[in-house]
Amino acid sequence: MDDVAGSYPDWLTKHAPTPDEDAMDRAVTRQTVLTKPRGSLGQLEDLAIALAGLLKTDRPSIDQPHIILFAGDHGITAEGVSAYPSDVTQQMLTNFVTGGAAISVLAREQGTALHVVDVGTLSENFQANVHVDKISHSSANFRQDAALTPDELIHAFQAGRRAVTRSVDAAADFLIFGEMGIGNTSSASAITAALTGRDISQLVGAGTGLDGTRISQKAQILSDCLAFHNLEAGDGAPLTVLQKVGGHEIAALTGAFISSAQAGVPILVDGFICSAAALAAVRLNPSIRDWMIFSHRSAEPGHAALLEAMDAHPLLDLGLRLGEGSGAALALPLVRMACALHNDMATFDSAGVSAAS
Amino acid sequence: MDDVAGSYPDWLTKHAPTPDEDAMDRAVTRQTVLTKPRGSLGQLEDLAIALAGLLKTDRPSIDQPHIILFAGDHGITAEGVSAYPSDVTQQMLTNFVTGGAAISVLAREQGTALHVVDVGTLSENFQANVHVDKISHSSANFRQDAALTPDELIHAFQAGRRAVTRSVDAAADFLIFGEMGIGNTSSASAITAALTGRDISQLVGAGTGLDGTRISQKAQILSDCLAFHNLEAGDGAPLTVLQKVGGHEIAALTGAFISSAQAGVPILVDGFICSAAALAAVRLNPSIRDWMIFSHRSAEPGHAALLEAMDAHPLLDLGLRLGEGSGAALALPLVRMACALHNDMATFDSAGVSAAS
Repeated sequence: MDDVAGSYPDWLTKHAPTPDEDAMDRAVTRQTVLTKPRGSLGQLEDLAIALAGLLKTDRPSIDQPHIILFAGDHGITAEGVSAYPSDVTQQMLTNFVTGGAAISVLAREQGTALHVVDVGTLSENFQANVHVDKISHSSANFRQDAALTPDELIHAFQAGRRAVTRSVDAAADFLIFGEMGIGNTSSASAITAALTGRDISQLVGAGTGLDGTRISQKAQILSDCLAFHNLEAGDGAPLTVLQKVGGHEIAALTGAFISSAQAGVPILVDGFICSAAALAAVRLNPSIRDWMIFSHRSAEPGHAALLEAMDAHPLLDLGLRLGEGSGAALALPLVRMACALHNDMATFDSAGVSAAS
Repeated sequence: MDDVAGSYPDWLTKHAPTPDEDAMDRAVTRQTVLTKPRGSLGQLEDLAIALAGLLKTDRPSIDQPHIILFAGDHGITAEGVSAYPSDVTQQMLTNFVTGGAAISVLAREQGTALHVVDVGTLSENFQANVHVDKISHSSANFRQDAALTPDELIHAFQAGRRAVTRSVDAAADFLIFGEMGIGNTSSASAITAALTGRDISQLVGAGTGLDGTRISQKAQILSDCLAFHNLEAGDGAPLTVLQKVGGHEIAALTGAFISSAQAGVPILVDGFICSAAALAAVRLNPSIRDWMIFSHRSAEPGHAALLEAMDAHPLLDLGLRLGEGSGAALALPLVRMACALHNDMATFDSAGVSAAS
């Protein structure tokens, strides 16, 4: 299935369930009889109809969303591509589980479970409430090596799958994935170039806060990396791309996207990093695309290329570029309200309201 | 202050409080020390800082938002400008208070009070939970008359003010206004043309669901109306415009916007109809502009002209065109989460996270 040495798990390419057309048809019909002009709820109508198909009911609702955040470190930080030191990945792990990070606040505000999984950070320490599922610490510096070994890539896929399974076993009916990893906009930018063929200089952004000069340097370094791995053509096979210029948490996300769709659990996709993993997942297994709802358009320039490659039309466009799953968590109330409107509004008949002429 | 006969209330032009610069400065400082890259929460950072200024605290929060929905009927419906009969205005009043309308569902989902005020519908009936504050039933057909008499216009302003006062007296600290009135996109389109000078044909949309032919007819009728009232130049004085081509609920909204700002209560502005009333309010009293947060960009084409005239950058763009305050209610969780993030995130110091290099 790809040109990377090693034996990749069969489940990666197994077909995800197909949306239930009958439930969608009934949801479409219901939308036409609710007490509002047809189409007047715009994207939220399409969202309710899509969820009807995914959840196999004409009255879809989200009762137990979970947020799963994957963390890993990146060897490419040795090249000075990030405004923050790699230490911050571990420090933020603590911040996630002690409630001070943006995603922690958003999870708490919405009563949503937040699971944190270390799939490859530099941390050697035990940290309460961080699930550790890693076989190495950090990816390699992909300016001079493959970011991941085949074994590391497989482990990351499996770690993503295990995390999804834990949530599904705990009755999660909707998933948000997030990520943390200093250096991961570099990896995501390289993946985006390698999968879409866009010029790297148009994809690289400030990440966590580089200035113009350092953005140019980052683009040059990533251009060198793509050349080093023969990925400039933009037609990279997804397994190769993830192994050469990916990262532990990004590969875990790819495994998690595929596993969630296969388990019949819809996913609200966060921003740039998650979308890079999502595109790799869709390229590996196109059947999962239906299960993805896109939450927001990131300020990171590479995100537009990823959204276009997946024909995705996100719910929000607020200039966010934080990661952690925060954009998806911010969009979650819209998804829930789309369901509530669809399920709980009166019909023209039941409310005695005259229809349009 | 305007060329309309009659004596308009002095309060309309009284200066609203100025945002607290000191609280804003402290909020700006706080945003720089929260555990996230600077600027990475995009528009939500600006929102938290703006609310700090309005609520005079560096830790702004919204504890008791109220939704106030004003309803009125429109004589212009006699010209066939709407897909629905005027009866629907009254039928929807019932739907609002019995919980079946979109805004009712959204208010319930968010635990937000919804107040419904009839400021000029055709209804003659008592309706539990509808506050009636009107001196007439429907506006006049503005193709051949002024929509409102000076007395009606003044009454509508006062009705808007009274509704705001009731909510403020009940401890509301944030207001959403909504509207219902078959025919009111015609009035809002005419107001938009008369206040901005845009060509009416570019402002008129489907409203509740007209097809292309009927949209063209609606534009021609409104063009005739603007000519009849000498409002084609686009420099209409707001009181004149509201009286000639406005409506009871639109004028009530104008009074409510001004009153809310004067009371120091921020407003989340809904879509096209509310924004037409908002622009009239800002033209009457520019000091209130600071108190408006714009919730969404409507699918109704005239809305873009109004947003531009107020230099407004809404939070959502979901193709909504329902009215009722529904777009604002959908954006309310974003406003609340902007505050929660601002108030509850850890700082770099408190979380022991390294800062950017």
